[in-house]
Amino acid sequence: MTPRTTVPPVVLDAMGGDHGPAETVAGAVAAWRTHHVPITLVGDEPRVVAELRRHSASGEIAVVHADDAVPMTERGAGAAALAASSLAVGCDLVGRGLGGAFVSAGSTGAVVSCAVRGIGRAAGVLRPALAVALPALTGGASVLVDAGATADPSPAMVAQFALLGVGYARAVLGRPDPTAGLLSIGSEPGKGNRLTCQSAELIAASPVRFHGNIEGHDVLTGVVDVIVTDGFTGNVVLKNVEGCVRTALTMVAQAGIASPDRLAEVARRYDPQTHGGATLLGLRGTVVVAHGSSRAATIARACVVAHALAAQDPAAGIGAGLEGAATRP
Amino acid sequence: MTPRTTVPPVVLDAMGGDHGPAETVAGAVAAWRTHHVPITLVGDEPRVVAELRRHSASGEIAVVHADDAVPMTERGAGAAALAASSLAVGCDLVGRGLGGAFVSAGSTGAVVSCAVRGIGRAAGVLRPALAVALPALTGGASVLVDAGATADPSPAMVAQFALLGVGYARAVLGRPDPTAGLLSIGSEPGKGNRLTCQSAELIAASPVRFHGNIEGHDVLTGVVDVIVTDGFTGNVVLKNVEGCVRTALTMVAQAGIASPDRLAEVARRYDPQTHGGATLLGLRGTVVVAHGSSRAATIARACVVAHALAAQDPAAGIGAGLEGAATRP
Repeated sequence: MTPRTTVPPVVLDAMGGDHGPAETVAGAVAAWRTHHVPITLVGDEPRVVAELRRHSASGEIAVVHADDAVPMTERGAGAAALAASSLAVGCDLVGRGLGGAFVSAGSTGAVVSCAVRGIGRAAGVLRPALAVALPALTGGASVLVDAGATADPSPAMVAQFALLGVGYARAVLGRPDPTAGLLSIGSEPGKGNRLTCQSAELIAASPVRFHGNIEGHDVLTGVVDVIVTDGFTGNVVLKNVEGCVRTALTMVAQAGIASPDRLAEVARRYDPQTHGGATLLGLRGTVVVAHGSSRAATIARACVVAHALAAQDPAAGIGAGLEGAATRP
Repeated sequence: MTPRTTVPPVVLDAMGGDHGPAETVAGAVAAWRTHHVPITLVGDEPRVVAELRRHSASGEIAVVHADDAVPMTERGAGAAALAASSLAVGCDLVGRGLGGAFVSAGSTGAVVSCAVRGIGRAAGVLRPALAVALPALTGGASVLVDAGATADPSPAMVAQFALLGVGYARAVLGRPDPTAGLLSIGSEPGKGNRLTCQSAELIAASPVRFHGNIEGHDVLTGVVDVIVTDGFTGNVVLKNVEGCVRTALTMVAQAGIASPDRLAEVARRYDPQTHGGATLLGLRGTVVVAHGSSRAATIARACVVAHALAAQDPAAGIGAGLEGAATRP
């Protein structure tokens, strides 16, 4: 990647996450200096500039002031309350074409709320969905979608999540003809709750290459390219994966079978710090939500992913795939 | 445990599971000969008696004939279709007091359907729930409830699941004052989907010692005694735990960090074969649903657990705990 690029800068929320602005600004400096990703920082200007000075980088990275930061406990309050926040100001920049992507380690609910308002949904999309690439036992990855953007979707929304996930798998994972499985409680057709039973019918009637139902034990096996679910189940499963892998490795260490050091490489594959972020699909611009606990290296990686996604424009394919399928509310 | 007991026999579905009646009858023989648990087998009499003869046990264990077996793909069809099945006949025996508990490795949906009809719900219980004890990193266990009996519960049903789970933790795990956490997508109050937000308010107003929300990464940490969730999410999480632990250990083995043999002990803790079964709570008699893939040893263990549960009568405490709390539909 060269320092000069035609893709607009990544807009980074300097105030988001548990460790902003110190770690976010450090991440911005790393993204620019190491990975040559152009960054615009949004946040409380005096604090952001002070952090930039600590890295002797006050002339290198643009800063746009925002009056407020959104507390991490914020659960997507009224848009009015967030209007002066770094989230709203940052998304507005992307919505006006002044940034190619938006990155935040803030509260997922608040990011989704501001992104829908400031960037807007792609044509025909009912609700956005979070996509997270989970490493598969086969060595590849599967995309979990929705990993937490829409907690109470309708069946039509879930069917769209399948289409959005397929678009992501094509654009980001490079799969030419991705398969999608619906996460349920039995592999046979008709097993599930009301939402999955109705969603399965819509997905089967859509252009998606539908594998049918998959179950909880299939999540890490790579049996499908796209794991489709509602945002509640997806978020519980995402965090359960992290917790279970950590627990299994801790038990191996406690049993004296292997040292924690030797297990660290396996642990790192499933550490939220190394995912690089979740991608919000279904908007007119790329949005990457990094984990709230992200440190500088994770923020930098999220900026690199966002920059690459913006350059590939996965939303174009996603928008096309949605035409004429499962767009009823 | 002595061979002579005042507790009525465990009624065992000889036809259930992927390996019935060969493995179920072998399990019955082991439960009786090794663990002194009295068993009544229900199923196709000629086949069951033939299996008993292979163990020279045709005079030791009672057999009650049932015309039909329920296919494992059965998803709880109309009760009429199941009326002559080993499930229906077995549950009817327990309902009439001729058995203290019912054990089956059959389809969970069909077992729940037959048990509700043949054994009946305990007073005030809206829907039954499956409880599964998950080993915790702390060395103890947490009860996951509902692990798959009721896929679409109302908030009042979820609040009852909390009460049922607390009764199980008291009666089976020996916790004097169990804590319960609601599985959701954020630890802060108010985070979740519609179902969990409404359920949290009902649980907080019930006699349950409510920890508040827990998240997917808390499932194996032992942070609460009872993990409360709907039957859809619970079943996905239960299978996800099994799959993730297996995947993590496979990766450790593939990385050459430890041999598969040395990891087998850790794997065994999370193997569904060793859980001994899930317990259906909220009925007037004990029901244990063993995994469909159960072999003889797992069936025998399920019978031992069912026998112990019937002797302790956990339902009595559960029924009392439900009085006056969260019993609206």
